[in-house]
Amino acid sequence: MDHYDAAFEELNPLPRLLMGPGPINADPRVLRAMSAPILGQFDPQFRAYMVQTMALYREIFQTRNEWTFMIDGTARAGIEAIFVSVIEPGDVVLVPVFGRFGNLKVEIAERCGADVKVIETEWGAVFRPEEIEAALRRHRPKLVAICQGDTSTTMLQPLADIARLCRQYDALLYVDATASLGGNDLPVDAWQIDAVSTGLQKCLAGPPGVSPITVNDRVTAVVRRRRHVERGLLGPGESQGPGTRIASNYFDLAMLMDYWDEKGLNHHTEATTGLYAARECARLLLKEGLEQVFARHALAGRALVAACQAMGLALFGDIAHKMANVTGVYIPEGIDGERVRSALLQDFNIEIGASFGPMRGKVWRIGSMGYCARKDAVLITVQALETVLAAEGFRLLRGTGVDAALAVYREAKGASPVRA
Amino acid sequence: MDHYDAAFEELNPLPRLLMGPGPINADPRVLRAMSAPILGQFDPQFRAYMVQTMALYREIFQTRNEWTFMIDGTARAGIEAIFVSVIEPGDVVLVPVFGRFGNLKVEIAERCGADVKVIETEWGAVFRPEEIEAALRRHRPKLVAICQGDTSTTMLQPLADIARLCRQYDALLYVDATASLGGNDLPVDAWQIDAVSTGLQKCLAGPPGVSPITVNDRVTAVVRRRRHVERGLLGPGESQGPGTRIASNYFDLAMLMDYWDEKGLNHHTEATTGLYAARECARLLLKEGLEQVFARHALAGRALVAACQAMGLALFGDIAHKMANVTGVYIPEGIDGERVRSALLQDFNIEIGASFGPMRGKVWRIGSMGYCARKDAVLITVQALETVLAAEGFRLLRGTGVDAALAVYREAKGASPVRA
Repeated sequence: MDHYDAAFEELNPLPRLLMGPGPINADPRVLRAMSAPILGQFDPQFRAYMVQTMALYREIFQTRNEWTFMIDGTARAGIEAIFVSVIEPGDVVLVPVFGRFGNLKVEIAERCGADVKVIETEWGAVFRPEEIEAALRRHRPKLVAICQGDTSTTMLQPLADIARLCRQYDALLYVDATASLGGNDLPVDAWQIDAVSTGLQKCLAGPPGVSPITVNDRVTAVVRRRRHVERGLLGPGESQGPGTRIASNYFDLAMLMDYWDEKGLNHHTEATTGLYAARECARLLLKEGLEQVFARHALAGRALVAACQAMGLALFGDIAHKMANVTGVYIPEGIDGERVRSALLQDFNIEIGASFGPMRGKVWRIGSMGYCARKDAVLITVQALETVLAAEGFRLLRGTGVDAALAVYREAKGASPVRA
Repeated sequence: MDHYDAAFEELNPLPRLLMGPGPINADPRVLRAMSAPILGQFDPQFRAYMVQTMALYREIFQTRNEWTFMIDGTARAGIEAIFVSVIEPGDVVLVPVFGRFGNLKVEIAERCGADVKVIETEWGAVFRPEEIEAALRRHRPKLVAICQGDTSTTMLQPLADIARLCRQYDALLYVDATASLGGNDLPVDAWQIDAVSTGLQKCLAGPPGVSPITVNDRVTAVVRRRRHVERGLLGPGESQGPGTRIASNYFDLAMLMDYWDEKGLNHHTEATTGLYAARECARLLLKEGLEQVFARHALAGRALVAACQAMGLALFGDIAHKMANVTGVYIPEGIDGERVRSALLQDFNIEIGASFGPMRGKVWRIGSMGYCARKDAVLITVQALETVLAAEGFRLLRGTGVDAALAVYREAKGASPVRA
């Protein structure tokens, strides 16, 4: 059967358990919400759903930022929307790189015409505030762009001190929380972060395709100066902003603000099902409770770490600074990492992640996030990994991994009311 | 109840019948397909679905273009992806404007740094080939960018002659088929159109959020010259292209081709549910048959036209060049167009469209496309319009509209095997 004939078969994907670095299995309630009837984008009901979605994400971002809304695209669409709207050609942008998604920011900032200054730390480590301060002092950037969590390395960069330093050196701070938001604390206002973007497909338990963002007044002021309304849509008495025109229409935050605003100035046709998904992800997360969701991710992460250690597997990187929701595990010597991943997929329908760059072929990345930050998902994955590793000739005492994971969950059950 | 409290209510949109210019009600089968389990983007099953989706859209675009794939964003994301990847700063771009979406192309091309040349015709008309030829001769553009159908005016621009002229004057031709594809014939290869983009939310019966595009070898050559792979992802022995770097990462067609290609070079995380939707839209359309779907749209459009004329409503624009799937109707003198739209929405759950620009307050736009290009949808809409117009004091003989529409359907049933 060729591709064309196969295309007429009904969709029937195997029920994979997605324990990689994302995307992960979406919460079935989110997928169901996406089946709700389509509404016109200026239907009062739809506008209400938009406003509600903004309110929900303010809670998730722990912010009072008015401009907390959705970019219709995958996570990097949110990054690019903020960059292209904030960065004017020639602006100095400092990117501290501690993994692949730091490199992505370098690349996007360069395409926006930025004078990009890069500092790097080895993969598996995070930056110390002094390193950031030295770069701030030296380069005096307009914008600092950094990941909270870089899935490529599993590391979680502490941000409170960096944010304080950015204020001190009068730089805007953008944080990419795609991999981390929902699984790790990110109090945007308390830490004074200026702009954040994320995606639905990791700790928020949704499908990829929508990027929630939040920007504060400092960013809004920069963006508003560059407001150039589409031809024919400028209101009476209005004039275009004095700043340089934003190089993208689709990602123009000034126009998107007008669209998400009560005035509802026409821009794109909002992705209806995407909005439904974003709203449902946030609604379910907040119903469970932000603290509870953090704790659930922390617990799943601890169980995975305990299991790997019990099995005699070495963990990658600075474990004290690991994201709760993804764990890097060294592929043991003599074991073919891709054969293990393939057996997990073919025999168990379980997906774990490979790695990029300097970690390529050396480290697996095992996720436990969003809908998959569940006890059963962690236990099943650990058991399957034991079985496959044993079959591949890795010496381990069968059952030690899963028992260790179970012990973490049992202990937590006594100690806290967290839903596992 | 404030927005935040309301946000915790379950999604429960009213079952609107969307008979405006789009978005329209998605086919329920498409929404259901979006509930299929999420797959990892490099899962062999998912890669197969991507390849299948490309094959399906080649049929819909009537092309053999290898590069027929999806942009993860709403329809204007597809426009911008093609523009930013093809247009280098200073390139001359000719935009023939016959409605609002012509203006949008001017705006996007300007943001890409193009030297934009605009020719305009009045809203409600289309261009004659001589007008295009005069502009081609005068401006010698690299790219001509035009709508096939501009929903703002309901007009359908004939393209065969224009495409021939573009070859003659060595210009690339980009066609925005967002509003028209699936409801009106667009044989991309037969007409020698170089690039086309569309959206799912009109005649393809899906939700907004994905933009299928196709580009031929002429466009691919331009794009490939500008190939600049992301930092750290350049393969051994590969070098960056000699052309200027594309100003967007998200919309970089060269990188997107590498991602959609068998080599599957990492880029964004494909919007899983969006791909499922795109595949299902195409699969359902082709199962019904391209000719049959055109005929179904033509029939619905004829029924709507007959109904409006029977009710004594004047039609907007050059009817000989109207899209099958949307009909402009003058708001009768003395009738408040917005009161009528509001009554249709509040009392009947039916949405019809208002208009922009010079047509604002003067014309309603009634759609009959995709899943809503159905006999029952047309009849129900016409009946409701009759009722509301009568209540607003418009003099008409009740039932004339719906009887006229029904007569068109009855006549067609005798004449053709088209599913109504």
